[in-house]
Amino acid sequence: MAENLKIIPLGGLDEIGKNITVLEYGKDMIVVDCGVGFPDEEMYGVDLVIPDFSYLVANQKKLRGMFITHGHEDHIGSIPYCMQQVNCPIHGTAMTNGLIKLKLEEHRIADKVKLVTHQPGDVVKAGCFSVEFIHVNHSIADATALAIKTPVGTVIFTGDFKIDPTASDGMIDLARFGQLGNEGVLALLCDSTNVERQGYTPSENLVAESLDKQFKNCDQRIIVTTFASNMHRLRAVIDIARRHGRKVAVSGRSMENMIKVATELGYLKIPAGTLVDLAAIKSLPKNKVVIVSTGSQGENMSALYRMAFGTHKQVDIVSGDRIIISASAIPGNEKAVSRIINELYRKGADVVYEKSEGLHVSGHACQEELKIIHGLVKPKFFIPVHGEQRHLQLHGRLAQQMGTPAKNIHIGEIGTVFELSKRTCKVKSAVPAGMVLVDGTGVGDVGSVVLRDRKHLAQDGMIVVCVNISSQDGGVISGPDIITRGFIYVKESEDLIDELREVAMEAIERCSRKRVRDWQILKSAIKNDLSGYLYKTTKRNPMILPVIMEI
Amino acid sequence: MAENLKIIPLGGLDEIGKNITVLEYGKDMIVVDCGVGFPDEEMYGVDLVIPDFSYLVANQKKLRGMFITHGHEDHIGSIPYCMQQVNCPIHGTAMTNGLIKLKLEEHRIADKVKLVTHQPGDVVKAGCFSVEFIHVNHSIADATALAIKTPVGTVIFTGDFKIDPTASDGMIDLARFGQLGNEGVLALLCDSTNVERQGYTPSENLVAESLDKQFKNCDQRIIVTTFASNMHRLRAVIDIARRHGRKVAVSGRSMENMIKVATELGYLKIPAGTLVDLAAIKSLPKNKVVIVSTGSQGENMSALYRMAFGTHKQVDIVSGDRIIISASAIPGNEKAVSRIINELYRKGADVVYEKSEGLHVSGHACQEELKIIHGLVKPKFFIPVHGEQRHLQLHGRLAQQMGTPAKNIHIGEIGTVFELSKRTCKVKSAVPAGMVLVDGTGVGDVGSVVLRDRKHLAQDGMIVVCVNISSQDGGVISGPDIITRGFIYVKESEDLIDELREVAMEAIERCSRKRVRDWQILKSAIKNDLSGYLYKTTKRNPMILPVIMEI
Repeated sequence: MAENLKIIPLGGLDEIGKNITVLEYGKDMIVVDCGVGFPDEEMYGVDLVIPDFSYLVANQKKLRGMFITHGHEDHIGSIPYCMQQVNCPIHGTAMTNGLIKLKLEEHRIADKVKLVTHQPGDVVKAGCFSVEFIHVNHSIADATALAIKTPVGTVIFTGDFKIDPTASDGMIDLARFGQLGNEGVLALLCDSTNVERQGYTPSENLVAESLDKQFKNCDQRIIVTTFASNMHRLRAVIDIARRHGRKVAVSGRSMENMIKVATELGYLKIPAGTLVDLAAIKSLPKNKVVIVSTGSQGENMSALYRMAFGTHKQVDIVSGDRIIISASAIPGNEKAVSRIINELYRKGADVVYEKSEGLHVSGHACQEELKIIHGLVKPKFFIPVHGEQRHLQLHGRLAQQMGTPAKNIHIGEIGTVFELSKRTCKVKSAVPAGMVLVDGTGVGDVGSVVLRDRKHLAQDGMIVVCVNISSQDGGVISGPDIITRGFIYVKESEDLIDELREVAMEAIERCSRKRVRDWQILKSAIKNDLSGYLYKTTKRNPMILPVIMEI
Repeated sequence: MAENLKIIPLGGLDEIGKNITVLEYGKDMIVVDCGVGFPDEEMYGVDLVIPDFSYLVANQKKLRGMFITHGHEDHIGSIPYCMQQVNCPIHGTAMTNGLIKLKLEEHRIADKVKLVTHQPGDVVKAGCFSVEFIHVNHSIADATALAIKTPVGTVIFTGDFKIDPTASDGMIDLARFGQLGNEGVLALLCDSTNVERQGYTPSENLVAESLDKQFKNCDQRIIVTTFASNMHRLRAVIDIARRHGRKVAVSGRSMENMIKVATELGYLKIPAGTLVDLAAIKSLPKNKVVIVSTGSQGENMSALYRMAFGTHKQVDIVSGDRIIISASAIPGNEKAVSRIINELYRKGADVVYEKSEGLHVSGHACQEELKIIHGLVKPKFFIPVHGEQRHLQLHGRLAQQMGTPAKNIHIGEIGTVFELSKRTCKVKSAVPAGMVLVDGTGVGDVGSVVLRDRKHLAQDGMIVVCVNISSQDGGVISGPDIITRGFIYVKESEDLIDELREVAMEAIERCSRKRVRDWQILKSAIKNDLSGYLYKTTKRNPMILPVIMEI
């Protein structure tokens, strides 16, 4: 029996973020992308969500390399965690690798990992695979798609992309997509992020024009915030600032890092005398200054946040400041962004933030752009990726509309093994896949039990009931003492606390009369009695922790 | 010195929701609206946010009545809480009072409160005030503005409104606004919700047309979800269903309640044979059924939620079902709505939910509509209400554009006392105002300390350290025992727990050697040592609760 190609998404299907896909054939395996996801609002206290790497660990011997499409967190963020468990060379373009390097340095493993830098058009051999980088447009510089030649046929990963004919770094290489399509593509794995949106995503050029309008006739200080990784946008801001005779100062660590990397790699060429230190702006007239800052997502403690709330060491927002938010809020961040806008208004600033102002465009392809890719690539099999269930389903329908038969469209989930021969694509099995939660330095030690407890504690707080019990007769030696946190304001609720103590005492005495010596039974009795009493009197359900110490 | 009119917003300024405003003149006081706010994501476990009523309680003797503009929660939701503290007649239109009555019944105080029902055009005397109800368009039936004649001049509250020339219950009474404007209006308090949006809010009619399109050529079951309170929308759905030969079944308590009230009051006239019981739909062909359900905001346990997640007793979503979400997600609810949509897609349903489909329109006036009101009313003084800081500021700018001088525009906050004479409006003082949190049956017993603890517990969980100490020599009799919740999964972290026990033991022994007898000092030592150790090893900061029992 001939060998099959296995395509195994370990993340990014039926979810947003933590994109990672395995390609496996015989003794060879490569990985495409290795991103993080972000915790949802139920994942209390969790910092990051990373993929379950156990399938990679189990197949370390086969691993021939990791190929990264571009440098966004949802495509590179898990690399340091992955590289602590397996090791292989990482291939990417210069900007992508620059960002990965920063990340590896932060985790102090830069010297352990081999980063190999390529240009669009380069082809890399990795076992039986050969991987070609293809230039695409996206909201980060140096983004690529991958065309992977395998023994059973060509597989194309679009990565995140859009079609921007007037992009400053050149239009996506549609010709190459078309050529590959004409040669025959076995499977297409395509970005589904914007499949709900009709039409086309506007060009990044449009934003530059809108920003220019905001600079014209403004004789006040201007502060622009945007995604630090959008080098096209930053370049536009710097160009416009120069045109209007303004110096540029930068605030916020991620923005500074990004500019440093991009400048070193030649993606950003800032003419001498354009950048000034943030400390120097005070000596400049207001209409000669632009501050570029982090905080476009309302992040706590970002530069714009600190400016808005008056805790920024160098910048005080004053009446008349024009603040341009050149970004849209990622779902979940709306309220945080809104809070900052309110504070800026309160200080008398002029805040420009509506989408209608053309101050931001998406980095992802809308329906018509997706159709162009499907039309060019004409894949035999289609697997929609990068999206929640509705995106995947809608993308499946779009593919059908473009001529892929329904039976050749496969909507999977993470862990699904797609087995492809030259003529067939089948789902036969699944491998371990899931999410691993990162909290502080802990990776995977916060799971569903811990999260359930955090949720419980968050909702109604907790009550600790301490009692010392005689090991001889089960009588109370001291206590029960009641300690609460996050339940009620104790100083104003002493009566309730007294009642709780009585309820606990009654439970203990009842057990003592029954000669209960199993402290688990006693604990349950205390817990049940208190929780029943509390629900009746307060309709709340705090966590109750009986602590019994036997003397 | 002549008496001044005091206008005191106790809620709804610099915030969304909990709208309530006091008007006071001499010995007379009236209240306009009495709404709830909803907890933000930092208010763990809080169910509702209500205004601080202490100013009303202190002035109970002056209270001549409460006037309600319409029946939405952010205008009526706090009435039961308010009426437990003060008492006065409540005036509103029939639909509004019908909803208030439901609320009072739920709180078992319906017999204590006098509800007086009026029609648009009615004028009510209340002390020195006379209050006229004016018909407006909004997303709930029977919404009104209020024109209040006071000894110093006329004050207009728009309430929530839009201008809908083709509304099924008739266009907003612009003529009356114009007449009052010509007679002279001292102050306008106007809804600011949509002041960020250019142009006009489309007519509710547009939604009816879009819904009709969705029904055409659909031979599957249709499920429509929308805001239960939008009677215009429900009426449209029922009309369209009849036109297409479908029976209507209702699922979800708030929808059932609303339909009951609206039918009793004559706002909804459902032809006999149109409504069927949910249990009866199984016997009908799929293309003869519409289910109208709650859940348009993704609410946990709403009818649509239960259908999506397979826990609805009577309705299973099957492939082909067309689900129409005729609503937009209120900020903060986006993810919940999105989760339901994903589940519906997973079950093979056809979900229609894009705004671009015209399936929902706002109930609030956009910029051009606001300008019409300003142009008609031509107030001497303008106080923007119903909005966060940015809405209030932008509305102030719009008022200037419409001819109100900047010095006559007053942006206040809750508690601000606006003192008006016939010619002046001054801010001199403030009264107590704020938010009171409702958690279960507790009103006001959850405050900043409790919330801070809940947040702390939510982030990193907690550790209880129990130890029995001899009262004679300060030595350890038993313990220290370590109990954690929401911190780490203990079964896989026994080593860490052992280390924590050692760290605690060292702290206790150190104190014992120093002959510490103040248990507060011992507690601090345990807390500091553990928290330092934990931060070093895990970068986490759980709440640490040392419990010392002296024997």
